[in-house]
Amino acid sequence: MFKIITHNKHKFEEMQKVVPDLEMLSMEYPEIQANSLEEVVDFSLDYLAERIEGNFIIDDSGLFIHSLNNFPGVYSAYVFDTIGNMGILKLMEGIEDRRAIFKTVIGVRLEGQNFKFVGLCHGHIAKEPRGTNGFGYDPIFVPEGDDRTFAEMSTEEKNKVSHRGKAIRKVSSFLHRFGFI
Amino acid sequence: MFKIITHNKHKFEEMQKVVPDLEMLSMEYPEIQANSLEEVVDFSLDYLAERIEGNFIIDDSGLFIHSLNNFPGVYSAYVFDTIGNMGILKLMEGIEDRRAIFKTVIGVRLEGQNFKFVGLCHGHIAKEPRGTNGFGYDPIFVPEGDDRTFAEMSTEEKNKVSHRGKAIRKVSSFLHRFGFI
Repeated sequence: MFKIITHNKHKFEEMQKVVPDLEMLSMEYPEIQANSLEEVVDFSLDYLAERIEGNFIIDDSGLFIHSLNNFPGVYSAYVFDTIGNMGILKLMEGIEDRRAIFKTVIGVRLEGQNFKFVGLCHGHIAKEPRGTNGFGYDPIFVPEGDDRTFAEMSTEEKNKVSHRGKAIRKVSSFLHRFGFI
Repeated sequence: MFKIITHNKHKFEEMQKVVPDLEMLSMEYPEIQANSLEEVVDFSLDYLAERIEGNFIIDDSGLFIHSLNNFPGVYSAYVFDTIGNMGILKLMEGIEDRRAIFKTVIGVRLEGQNFKFVGLCHGHIAKEPRGTNGFGYDPIFVPEGDDRTFAEMSTEEKNKVSHRGKAIRKVSSFLHRFGFI
């Protein structure tokens, strides 16, 4: 039996496909300012472990742009809410190297221990926003091996190659392998 | 007797001028991701209070740019380390409204209670970096009532009008008033 700590019903349903016995718990928890998503997730797992009974799951994601020293990185949500995709495109004007990595870290608290599962998606920043699916930076991120942005793909197409899809599949195979689901 | 929790010797010396019986404690502590410096400081005060004996002082500062929805705000240090002043100037290209606020929140843990002291400095973002004094965003911030950036002022001139100078004077007068120093 697992709880997923999120306000996002979409994330709950996505995780429920691989962790059938899942309950959604909508509560606030602090995320620290850190240099890596792994540190953020570890701190939040420890914080929540003092407040929640049993096993639970959280996650955090970020977009890391090479030529911007990995900006917006750990603070992707905040940066999106302030300067948005147009701000990112403005910062990228005249910059040749448009490589970027989308990263998800899923944290699992299982029988008193922290486990982290990382999903990466390499790609590049488009010249202008394209597409209307997805959310956040999806309209400006083109995954490797495709010409379309995430926002131009269906959910199924995106999940096959996305950072989040990969991390979820890692969680699923770990929990199966050790007999937790 | 107070401790100031910082790695920055300059901040220690600055605070020591108004809080004579001060000790510097160089340790790491978590800052949460939040919408305001006040929330960040409150969380850190509570976190440290479980780990440190006696009274102590911390602080956090940020630059809030109106036309960028208060970006870089609470994440000013991280944004400076990634996209820097040139990134901010690029984001401001073609934008008429260059108003910005520099803000410091000093958190004081005193006999088991949190007190916060806020200093604000209104101003605007310069068109290009000027000056070599100070640090961080100083070369691109022009305080109201002056034509020079913070980086073109002496430390004494800057402290008279700066967010940090104002917050420190508030701490000083509070501690005097209630007989703690």
